[in-house]
Amino acid sequence: MIIDPWSSQDIKDYGKLRDEFGIEPFSQLIKKINNPSMLMRRGVIFGHRDFGRIIDAMEKKNPWAMMTGLMPSGKFHLGHMILAQQIIDYQNRGGKIFLCVADIEAYNVRKKSYEELRETAINEYLVNYIALGLKPKNCDFYFQSDRNVPYYRLASSLARRVTFNEIKAIYGQISPAKIYSALIQVADILHPQLTGKKPVVVPVGVDQDPHLRLTRDLASRTKEEFDFIPPSSTYHVFMKGINGGKMSSSNPSSYIALTDSPEEARKKIMRAFSGGGATLAEHKKHGGNPDVDVACQYLTYIFEPDDKKLTKLIEGFRKGDIISGDLKGYLADRVEKFLKEHQKKRELAKRKVGQFLK
Amino acid sequence: MIIDPWSSQDIKDYGKLRDEFGIEPFSQLIKKINNPSMLMRRGVIFGHRDFGRIIDAMEKKNPWAMMTGLMPSGKFHLGHMILAQQIIDYQNRGGKIFLCVADIEAYNVRKKSYEELRETAINEYLVNYIALGLKPKNCDFYFQSDRNVPYYRLASSLARRVTFNEIKAIYGQISPAKIYSALIQVADILHPQLTGKKPVVVPVGVDQDPHLRLTRDLASRTKEEFDFIPPSSTYHVFMKGINGGKMSSSNPSSYIALTDSPEEARKKIMRAFSGGGATLAEHKKHGGNPDVDVACQYLTYIFEPDDKKLTKLIEGFRKGDIISGDLKGYLADRVEKFLKEHQKKRELAKRKVGQFLK
Repeated sequence: MIIDPWSSQDIKDYGKLRDEFGIEPFSQLIKKINNPSMLMRRGVIFGHRDFGRIIDAMEKKNPWAMMTGLMPSGKFHLGHMILAQQIIDYQNRGGKIFLCVADIEAYNVRKKSYEELRETAINEYLVNYIALGLKPKNCDFYFQSDRNVPYYRLASSLARRVTFNEIKAIYGQISPAKIYSALIQVADILHPQLTGKKPVVVPVGVDQDPHLRLTRDLASRTKEEFDFIPPSSTYHVFMKGINGGKMSSSNPSSYIALTDSPEEARKKIMRAFSGGGATLAEHKKHGGNPDVDVACQYLTYIFEPDDKKLTKLIEGFRKGDIISGDLKGYLADRVEKFLKEHQKKRELAKRKVGQFLK
Repeated sequence: MIIDPWSSQDIKDYGKLRDEFGIEPFSQLIKKINNPSMLMRRGVIFGHRDFGRIIDAMEKKNPWAMMTGLMPSGKFHLGHMILAQQIIDYQNRGGKIFLCVADIEAYNVRKKSYEELRETAINEYLVNYIALGLKPKNCDFYFQSDRNVPYYRLASSLARRVTFNEIKAIYGQISPAKIYSALIQVADILHPQLTGKKPVVVPVGVDQDPHLRLTRDLASRTKEEFDFIPPSSTYHVFMKGINGGKMSSSNPSSYIALTDSPEEARKKIMRAFSGGGATLAEHKKHGGNPDVDVACQYLTYIFEPDDKKLTKLIEGFRKGDIISGDLKGYLADRVEKFLKEHQKKRELAKRKVGQFLK
């Protein structure tokens, strides 16, 4: 494990996550997983709840599923790739993929039109997923606003089992729109089991955990009527923005979009926040701090698939043998190459969109 | 007009209804209606909002619809016939009938199971409607829990446009279940226009008016997206219970169910609350009070279709020429005859149920 978010500065309350919320370190079960993915073995996926059920189903070749949602707003950027990589990995491991476009939520909470949302969901999200390797077989890509009667009936049936305080705990404040969104999101997570009881894993960032807790509670409260297995979940760290702060869809200088030109991407990387010493001499003497270095992160999360090479780069940087400019250059080459290839794949992907839409 | 609820004791705030809420006396437009129904000409339907649109559509043979819902709980009784008569009258006048089983609301607010609710909706409500004359043609009988995607999308799209206070004003208190029910009910009223803009009338008791006001507001607030005509509405008085108080589904001695035996119904009527004098002598001297007399009401609302005969009976009772026992006997004969015939028709109706279900 290269990243140890349980001891990192970014998320301070891991003890609380474990003790109060029952999120367990992912590292504890990684040896049970056949050929763990890069994100798993590097600790980017750092926590889980009941992931053992998924491992068990994979081993026994029992049906299982992965469910996730996307909020169709803004550009698809490197930060979104963390989830995309997981989706595709789970599909390759034999899971049925449920990919929900949260357009009812976006319509109500962000006040966009369904047409605009559909356009963004397809051109920004679906096309990139396909280009990254998502296949139509065993993939159920759907819009909340265009699902089916049993799904809406499920959402409707949850209304009597949820309280204001539970929804307040998730959103901080409540409104009819937020209550509706919360109910439909619980239905998103549970409805894969309407066509057969099975373990379902939802990969999320820690900020999404309140939704998972609510869903697990509602799975218990509907026991006599639906008999759902409470969803499993995994938790991944967030990629930092180019500037070392939050990667934010509303701030294009904080991210590299998958449609950015390779040249533009290179420029952004060369400007990225560095964990290197203040001067070359200092860096050589005291070394760099890979924990805050953006280039180190991006290599770890996406761009250096070879674990040995990655360790060499990071340790070299930590010791001061590798300087920031070289590390950024190395990353920029990788990103440029990736974007060139990816943008070609996007053109092919556009023709495959129809296979994912009913 | 035999009943004048605008001046009756039961509903005291008709001035308020008109001035604050824009409900107009139905009597003002009755002369524009071709062959007004018994309930219209007797003032049982006493108020309306924008019913002129419906009259206009009827005259011009433009499409129009009637929408109403039923809460599937308890027995179908004489009180329900006020609405049933209107439904059938509107169907005969060429309106498309939307008949909604409010099972999502009943499930969430009354905590019944969908199976139980479906059973009650069909065996108590639909069978009686059919026996009373409802025809499958131009009738869309549906369950909230089993409608279609555009309907649910409409309900979803309303969430952002409604406030807590509006829902509180309707239900007195709020909960996620009540918010959900309110949204789905607005969708019930508006969705007939998803398949074509048209005037829609909703016949209700005055207690349901807050739902109509909310729906009309939401029709305006969704103008740019849906372009709905705000619903028209009519308001009918409630039938009193046998005991002169409220007719209540939870108190079988307060109502005559359409499945009660004719003998049982006769007994209930003979015990009914009377507006007659305390003694025979007093009645002969001072006369009776038809405004509080249950038998007078039931004859007016349902069992004496002949206006002249009705006036004779009521005026005779008022003067003291007709005594309470005789009036009740007259009503009991009518009710017995009606129930015998109706219960035969129910048996035939049961075979027609399939024509109303998709």
